[in-house]
Amino acid sequence: MHHSSSAMLTDLYQLTMLQGYFHHGMEETAVFEFFSRKLPEERNFLIAAGLEQALDFLENLSFMDEEIGWLDQTGFFQKDFLDYLRALQFTGDVHAMPEGTVFFADEPILRVVAPLPQAQLVETRLINILHFQSLVASKAARLKLIAPNKLLVDFGLRRAHGAEAGMFAARASYIAGFNGTSNVLAGREYGMPIFGTMAHSFIQAHDSESESFMRFAQAQPENVVLLIDTYDTEAAAEKIVRLMPEFTKQGIVVKGVRLDSGDLVDHANKVRRILDNGGLHQVTIFSSGSLDEYRLKHMIDMEAPIDGFGVGTRLDTSADAPYLDCAYKLEEYGGIARRKRSEGKVTWPGRKQVFRQFNDDESMSFDLLTLEGDEAEGKPLLQPVMQGGKRLSPATSLAQIQEYTLSQLKRLPSHLKRLVKGAMYPVQISSPLRSLALEVDERNSPN
Amino acid sequence: MHHSSSAMLTDLYQLTMLQGYFHHGMEETAVFEFFSRKLPEERNFLIAAGLEQALDFLENLSFMDEEIGWLDQTGFFQKDFLDYLRALQFTGDVHAMPEGTVFFADEPILRVVAPLPQAQLVETRLINILHFQSLVASKAARLKLIAPNKLLVDFGLRRAHGAEAGMFAARASYIAGFNGTSNVLAGREYGMPIFGTMAHSFIQAHDSESESFMRFAQAQPENVVLLIDTYDTEAAAEKIVRLMPEFTKQGIVVKGVRLDSGDLVDHANKVRRILDNGGLHQVTIFSSGSLDEYRLKHMIDMEAPIDGFGVGTRLDTSADAPYLDCAYKLEEYGGIARRKRSEGKVTWPGRKQVFRQFNDDESMSFDLLTLEGDEAEGKPLLQPVMQGGKRLSPATSLAQIQEYTLSQLKRLPSHLKRLVKGAMYPVQISSPLRSLALEVDERNSPN
Repeated sequence: MHHSSSAMLTDLYQLTMLQGYFHHGMEETAVFEFFSRKLPEERNFLIAAGLEQALDFLENLSFMDEEIGWLDQTGFFQKDFLDYLRALQFTGDVHAMPEGTVFFADEPILRVVAPLPQAQLVETRLINILHFQSLVASKAARLKLIAPNKLLVDFGLRRAHGAEAGMFAARASYIAGFNGTSNVLAGREYGMPIFGTMAHSFIQAHDSESESFMRFAQAQPENVVLLIDTYDTEAAAEKIVRLMPEFTKQGIVVKGVRLDSGDLVDHANKVRRILDNGGLHQVTIFSSGSLDEYRLKHMIDMEAPIDGFGVGTRLDTSADAPYLDCAYKLEEYGGIARRKRSEGKVTWPGRKQVFRQFNDDESMSFDLLTLEGDEAEGKPLLQPVMQGGKRLSPATSLAQIQEYTLSQLKRLPSHLKRLVKGAMYPVQISSPLRSLALEVDERNSPN
Repeated sequence: MHHSSSAMLTDLYQLTMLQGYFHHGMEETAVFEFFSRKLPEERNFLIAAGLEQALDFLENLSFMDEEIGWLDQTGFFQKDFLDYLRALQFTGDVHAMPEGTVFFADEPILRVVAPLPQAQLVETRLINILHFQSLVASKAARLKLIAPNKLLVDFGLRRAHGAEAGMFAARASYIAGFNGTSNVLAGREYGMPIFGTMAHSFIQAHDSESESFMRFAQAQPENVVLLIDTYDTEAAAEKIVRLMPEFTKQGIVVKGVRLDSGDLVDHANKVRRILDNGGLHQVTIFSSGSLDEYRLKHMIDMEAPIDGFGVGTRLDTSADAPYLDCAYKLEEYGGIARRKRSEGKVTWPGRKQVFRQFNDDESMSFDLLTLEGDEAEGKPLLQPVMQGGKRLSPATSLAQIQEYTLSQLKRLPSHLKRLVKGAMYPVQISSPLRSLALEVDERNSPN
């Protein structure tokens, strides 16, 4: 299944609407923006992520001949329109917040300016990419804020929602400060660090736990983290102390042990004592098993002697907030600003820009949501990234994005760094933007 | 990114463990089973799904040369092991519950019997496939039970967790009784029905809502569902009544209208009255917007005149229960049964079979979890599906799977068909299985 770059990865209505635009020659310039309508109850801020894959998608957008053939046999489309689709490419301009930027409700993180059919067609997949990566980056940033000095590794591939979710989650969590992932393909594709320990099955396949430790260590003497909860956590820690002379003799360095079940704080304290009493001060304790930022906070508050965490399912599914209320909306067409007024889903019209203001201590003060071209103080967050369908600069390295994200997190107001919901960060709406919204509403009185 | 079939889509520890198995010649037969440890609080039963993609993955498992090259430069692996990986294929046997089967905690839905390294390596991706499809099928079945006679369409691609999640969710929801999806690629890849209406942007791009309705309809005169909440829902319904003579004159059949915001029950009642008063009894009402089984139940309880539902984000993310507590565990190696005893994660050892018993009225009575080969009454749910790495029969069509699922749902005890948590369905553990577990524990006293 080689589908992640297919132009067919879209909703049927995009294609039927395109047929409508095509038949009526509606190819004037449209402006769409991607934003979140409101933050989940469990989030104080969001982190933009996924731009790199979004630009890849736009740059490579095209229908293959066999796809056009398949569309033909559905009976939904006319021949002239299918010929038009066959030649379709993305030739538009894109502005975006750099990946890793902190953002809030109503603030666009991406703006597409392109002929209406192109800008419309890409809606589904652009949301699909930006939504999920931003979702996971936002979750991972909370973990990083709670455990800034711990080793954090993404363990979530198996319970991520499919292959691409596992890939994107590895990438997005790294952007937000994780040290790496267990996902081998993510290591290869994104050039990010990969980590691994051992599973219970390795131990179970041996008749003796000690023998399994020795054999696992012998197979990769420089990368040994032993899993110790298969039968009895403390007994296994004692075994490692007893085995240590033999490990040392064989040139094996045991870097750490992993706890994966039970009361992790209690086990960590007991295991740390056993290791220290055995002189193994340098052997670290790594833990995993249903972790998230709430559990990490508990363990850190309890001063559990744990050096690193493998965070899986709840990170990769963003379990406490598994989706964002986000949208990609038409803001302007043919030079005229537009907005929808559906109940509870009213949007701000026009091409927008976000200016961020900082306090003297460099912490974030407030944002101003205004129209592009308005003069305002502060740093404009949306920057040009694509022109005429071509990227304006090569991809930023993940390590650079991570550094930028961490610098952003430092500047967050301190009440937003906590896990509990804090006072909302101020996003002011400029008066030119408010005036434009009123103007659009007056023009759109039902007809 | 063509990665969904890559053998590299795995956790690093699988490969380091394989290196350990390889070095110690541990290639005897292993038995692994995939099961859920416990059901989410929000689920009374689960539906097995994803087997087709799991078998595809096993049949095509192999490392490409450039992948081996990449693994080499990580420094984690020795040359002789990499040569071994290069030649690795899956040659094992698989038993599974047919897709669409109802299952409960502790019941394996898939069993792999293969040389230990093969059975180990495939863990991550097998879970990744089976977990998510079963998650969505289980959610979709709840929607189907609540709204058995309504048109149900998956609208979730945009907020699914990446491309494959959107694909798998379309497939899994169809298995569980949905009528189709908006996802065009899913239509092509799985041969399932696709549905679509129109988006707000189409209407916003026009200066007149009436003109946009007319133009959309003209472009696909046989497939017209008009979205009416962009500015004022009831006013738009009135417009459609006024436009109807012109539609008819042009040979356009308006099949329905779509509501996407506000109080859907109230709007549906008002819109139905407007349409009926205008003589448009045949025009159906379709609704969407943050729907799930709880909201559907409310609308159906309120007898809202809604004929169909587009269910998106909360279906594709299984928002109320975004993951299952599931695992793929070693149950036997080298002819000896195995179990782990980690706190809270104890498993049942050995090759297992599930027998389902029915009442006289054909409803499900109880399940018996026992060992393969034990004699028991009832229907054995795990069936052979792959032998020596090859499928035993061609893929079952999705329509057939759906039919099977619906027949399963009919036979569910009625208290399990409700949305609220009901008394747990009885899964009995046979005495041979209990005895084996005790025997394994005695053998595994720590050493």
